[in-house]
Amino acid sequence: MENVFDREERTMKIMILGADGYLGWPMAANLSLTKNKLILVDNYIKRTLFKKYGKEPLVSLPRLETRCKILKKYNKNISFVKTDCTNTQKFLNLFSRHKPDVVIHFAELPSAPYSMHNFKEGWKTLDNNLKSTFNLITAVKTYNRKCHIIKLGTMGEYGTPNIDIEEGWLTVKHKGRQQKFLYPRQGSSLYHTSKIMDTDLLWFYVRTFGLRVTDLMQGPVYGVKINKTLDADQFYPTFAYDDMFGTVLNRFIVQGIANIPLTVYGSGNQIRGYLDIKDTIQCINLAIKHAPKANELRIYNQFTQQFSVNELAKKVQNALKKIHINASIKKIKNPRVEKEKHYYNAKHSGMKKLGLKPSLLTDRSIIEIAEYVIKHKNKINKTIIQPKSFWK
Amino acid sequence: MENVFDREERTMKIMILGADGYLGWPMAANLSLTKNKLILVDNYIKRTLFKKYGKEPLVSLPRLETRCKILKKYNKNISFVKTDCTNTQKFLNLFSRHKPDVVIHFAELPSAPYSMHNFKEGWKTLDNNLKSTFNLITAVKTYNRKCHIIKLGTMGEYGTPNIDIEEGWLTVKHKGRQQKFLYPRQGSSLYHTSKIMDTDLLWFYVRTFGLRVTDLMQGPVYGVKINKTLDADQFYPTFAYDDMFGTVLNRFIVQGIANIPLTVYGSGNQIRGYLDIKDTIQCINLAIKHAPKANELRIYNQFTQQFSVNELAKKVQNALKKIHINASIKKIKNPRVEKEKHYYNAKHSGMKKLGLKPSLLTDRSIIEIAEYVIKHKNKINKTIIQPKSFWK
Repeated sequence: MENVFDREERTMKIMILGADGYLGWPMAANLSLTKNKLILVDNYIKRTLFKKYGKEPLVSLPRLETRCKILKKYNKNISFVKTDCTNTQKFLNLFSRHKPDVVIHFAELPSAPYSMHNFKEGWKTLDNNLKSTFNLITAVKTYNRKCHIIKLGTMGEYGTPNIDIEEGWLTVKHKGRQQKFLYPRQGSSLYHTSKIMDTDLLWFYVRTFGLRVTDLMQGPVYGVKINKTLDADQFYPTFAYDDMFGTVLNRFIVQGIANIPLTVYGSGNQIRGYLDIKDTIQCINLAIKHAPKANELRIYNQFTQQFSVNELAKKVQNALKKIHINASIKKIKNPRVEKEKHYYNAKHSGMKKLGLKPSLLTDRSIIEIAEYVIKHKNKINKTIIQPKSFWK
Repeated sequence: MENVFDREERTMKIMILGADGYLGWPMAANLSLTKNKLILVDNYIKRTLFKKYGKEPLVSLPRLETRCKILKKYNKNISFVKTDCTNTQKFLNLFSRHKPDVVIHFAELPSAPYSMHNFKEGWKTLDNNLKSTFNLITAVKTYNRKCHIIKLGTMGEYGTPNIDIEEGWLTVKHKGRQQKFLYPRQGSSLYHTSKIMDTDLLWFYVRTFGLRVTDLMQGPVYGVKINKTLDADQFYPTFAYDDMFGTVLNRFIVQGIANIPLTVYGSGNQIRGYLDIKDTIQCINLAIKHAPKANELRIYNQFTQQFSVNELAKKVQNALKKIHINASIKKIKNPRVEKEKHYYNAKHSGMKKLGLKPSLLTDRSIIEIAEYVIKHKNKINKTIIQPKSFWK
């Protein structure tokens, strides 16, 4: 059984906000293989939204009450609390009862298309993401200022500037003087803008009240399998493939298997940094091990490889060919407003320095996802894949 | 009678959000001297907060229903609507009914100490400021995309970086390439952070949906009198002098007249850019005249002179001496967390280029405020001036 901590390390109380999500659940499952005490928190908002917008994920997973029981086989010190992190009093009560050493904050609405669907979804994204973060800050500031907050940010906060994207910070030389700033950010959706605001909020409290925060600027994630111990459907994450909550590579694989074209938005020359879900887990474990000092906001760019959307589509096409699936690729009008031809060179050496051993994107890793999708092929709903949220 | 518009200019529909406030009301009064149609909006939240925290302003002013009637003498096309701009449906209804050409957005909670009082006030500030701005954006995007939004920002968004503060934007040269960014911001309170978020929000919608926005990065304002036509108590703004809602120069004058020491926070070497309320009005009138194009966020640094807090205190002391008031100055522990020794050189040439003729800070301008305070000296409540909100 894997153990991400050295044996001599003390056990910690780790709270996972948004533990039912695509990343929250596998993170919880992975940490259940350690001796740490785990408190999983979720309000099932994503399940509500999947239902509301008719975007059910590929496999309907048991609720956390049930899945927690399965994890108890590995770790008795694991509990689930159904709480809305945007409810200030309930969240403060929960936090003060446990006083966790680490909080991994996944309790944010993660979708650009959802945030741009209409103004109600836009405000819901802003309100949910800011309030959950504000409540977490308030709890830490009030009850345990040493608590290490690990927040999932997004590479999308940086947008596509015409200069290299550095890792969180930028030293600006100007008229003979210099200043280190948070790297200037401008995202291409309201969701990304809400994450920029989160970062601003955390940075204010870090520098003013001595909080300790790690901000993981993550690229789009792909994959389902986490590790060999937890290699069964019940440990896999929610696999969304729709236009609103699905990430691009997972969606392409579903399209290929469903025998519909892989839909590339616009020219397909948009470049982003991507990573395997195994690496997300690895990075967060590394972040847990390397807590920042008081007054420190530690920022990592969390991705392993840069690809254009065209390259991704071709990689999926080539890998699927090896298992005798002929996928076609189709360019469609971009529903988003984003630069389709741009410079992109983003630094991502921080996690490597901490010891990240990346699982790079190969035919094998695409086929690993494809095998999962093929097993559930009969459940694919082809009608939920085409974009329905248009920026304009 | 003054007219800020050229005679040949068409009249406009101008909506003022937060028309009961320190700046909203004199702006409305001043614009009543033009031929424009005016729609004043407020929900009296500041009156509620003055009462709740026991921070009543020097003079209790009639409500806008009454004051609007007075303004009708100058302009028949003026109306007041009591509406909470954070109520999305009500605000969208109001906006769609009038479809204004210009909206001056003062509907934000403006106080650093209020925002840092406790977490409830903190969230109230974030929520109010973001939601009123988001609703305004939604209304403009939905009903009249040509509408010119004039938003009051704050110089405090920039903080005190170790390089010159440029006017809104900064071109960064990095590894042989360059990019123009919004000038990187980091404020010293939650209020200032909420204004940084506002700017991010507006800039996203400007570049994505072609909105037209002027952002006025304003320094602390002082003064009561606007112009000669409107020179009577009923036209003056709410004059707060307490620790929560009072601005520093107005507060110093009240302290001098009340025969209590002028309280300088910390070393007093904090430098900021200040302006007379007459210049606020002038700047906003200039902004109205110079509407940005679609997709343009026009940013001005709105102040006329830089002073340290020590210099301000001494200027007030010297001016009051001329009217035979001997004020003392007392340094007290800084309730805020802010740099007390820092570089500060902020550009402010944009408004001058548009024609701003500044009213600089003189003994005369201090005495003008002092005369107003002396007239109401018996109403000064000495117990509401000492700081009660501490950052730590």
